[in-house]
Amino acid sequence: MSTDGPFELWAIGVVRSPLGDPDAAPKQGSEGGEEAWVELDPRWLEALDDVTPGDRLLVLTWLHLGDRSTLKVHPRDDRSKPLRGVFSTRSASRPNPIGLHEVEVLEVDGARLRVAPLEAVDGTPVVDLKPVI
Amino acid sequence: MSTDGPFELWAIGVVRSPLGDPDAAPKQGSEGGEEAWVELDPRWLEALDDVTPGDRLLVLTWLHLGDRSTLKVHPRDDRSKPLRGVFSTRSASRPNPIGLHEVEVLEVDGARLRVAPLEAVDGTPVVDLKPVI
Repeated sequence: MSTDGPFELWAIGVVRSPLGDPDAAPKQGSEGGEEAWVELDPRWLEALDDVTPGDRLLVLTWLHLGDRSTLKVHPRDDRSKPLRGVFSTRSASRPNPIGLHEVEVLEVDGARLRVAPLEAVDGTPVVDLKPVI
Repeated sequence: MSTDGPFELWAIGVVRSPLGDPDAAPKQGSEGGEEAWVELDPRWLEALDDVTPGDRLLVLTWLHLGDRSTLKVHPRDDRSKPLRGVFSTRSASRPNPIGLHEVEVLEVDGARLRVAPLEAVDGTPVVDLKPVI
């Protein structure tokens, strides 16, 4: 149980979404995120028991397009705004580019969940699901 | 930019806390989490710019004591409760044991943050910090 890392994060599934272009995708789901499918690998089906339509979930993703060497960003890619440390922003570019998306579960179909709103682009790896508490 | 994983998650810091025994630690910070220090590696100091006392942050941790093979758990370790899929719980045992802790920043001292409440035990690796939005 090493605590030094690095730790190996597994893709448990993938986002299937009409959003394909990261530059066109909304910054937050509340700003026009789409309905999307979270497709889990069927090996995790049992872990999905008790997730039902109407649940509010946090979808954790691996923002594979983020730049891990970035320490400061212009918030919302707006160059008129001063640079900020990435830990005071939700930028996808950060040392560990984990995305956090609050969604409602609309449908459960086997190991697939239809959710909204989700601003992650098609193909984004999913690494965890947690209930909102 | 592979999306298959595994992805390499870096420890950017560590929790320093009086909580040492995971069995005695509260399940959620709101249930008696302690004041604790989040000590970042100084290499990330610049990314911490603009984090100030009073901010509400999400501390993402790597729950190194979690069991990654667990797919169902008794909620809150209460064996009188029926087993549930881990994605409908906040159990530390899950495929990718990422912990999510909402805290208030009480003090910023270089690359160290004093925060509360934080229920993670001493030595828990920290992997990301995000503002609450």
